[in-house]
Amino acid sequence: MNKVTEQTIQEINIQFYKAFESLSLERMEEVWKHSDEVVCVHPGWDLFRGWTAVRESWITVFQNTERIQFHIANAKVRVFENIIAVVVCLENIETVINQDKIRTGVIATNIFENQRTIRSVKDEWRMIHHHGSPVSDYIPPNVSV
Amino acid sequence: MNKVTEQTIQEINIQFYKAFESLSLERMEEVWKHSDEVVCVHPGWDLFRGWTAVRESWITVFQNTERIQFHIANAKVRVFENIIAVVVCLENIETVINQDKIRTGVIATNIFENQRTIRSVKDEWRMIHHHGSPVSDYIPPNVSV
Repeated sequence: MNKVTEQTIQEINIQFYKAFESLSLERMEEVWKHSDEVVCVHPGWDLFRGWTAVRESWITVFQNTERIQFHIANAKVRVFENIIAVVVCLENIETVINQDKIRTGVIATNIFENQRTIRSVKDEWRMIHHHGSPVSDYIPPNVSV
Repeated sequence: MNKVTEQTIQEINIQFYKAFESLSLERMEEVWKHSDEVVCVHPGWDLFRGWTAVRESWITVFQNTERIQFHIANAKVRVFENIIAVVVCLENIETVINQDKIRTGVIATNIFENQRTIRSVKDEWRMIHHHGSPVSDYIPPNVSV
């Protein structure tokens, strides 16, 4: 795999989590492709399909989150002919709910699509799929998140 | 999207669940790409990476399953330039454990890769990614599975 592309995808994956941490809908909108085909599965929820539904789900998540921080581990990238990138990673999450710190672990499958062919000659990767699921028997790592 | 390809992918996705129901390692081996890059997340387990680990996980699953049946619903297929296919579906599962029937729901992201370019001129889709996660508040559909 082209190392530049792998690095690019790692950075775009981190941008998704930075957008999540910022609790900013505008930043999350910049990460996603605005298409009827996108899919988002928040851990333990039903799935949302299509950008309108996915966008609504982020509004709900952000409204119900006081603070959230991610420490992303073991992010592995697979890129297929510079069109599709699949990232699998472990989200070590610290949230604050009613002033209590809660640490949880989530395994995520994140898929990004290169928009280059239809928009411009420049690579432009957008999220088209997020599937997060809780890790059972989660032990938080010894890191400050 | 090419309708023939979509139909092909729907059938290959069903083959995966038929292999699972058969509890046959040989049939599961036929579905997967035997590569260090494949990933499998069984619901509520940690992830397995690489065919050796994924294969071992299926041995464990099959050894601990008396009987399992799937009713797959809402399978939606996205195919990217005849190279990568992403399927999202709901697995309505009926298992028998200690003679008790248990019904559960799982949301799955299944990714298949076309092996054509490296092996032959014929399309040959192999599973490279399975991510299953439990549905909370699952209500079984009114179907016999």
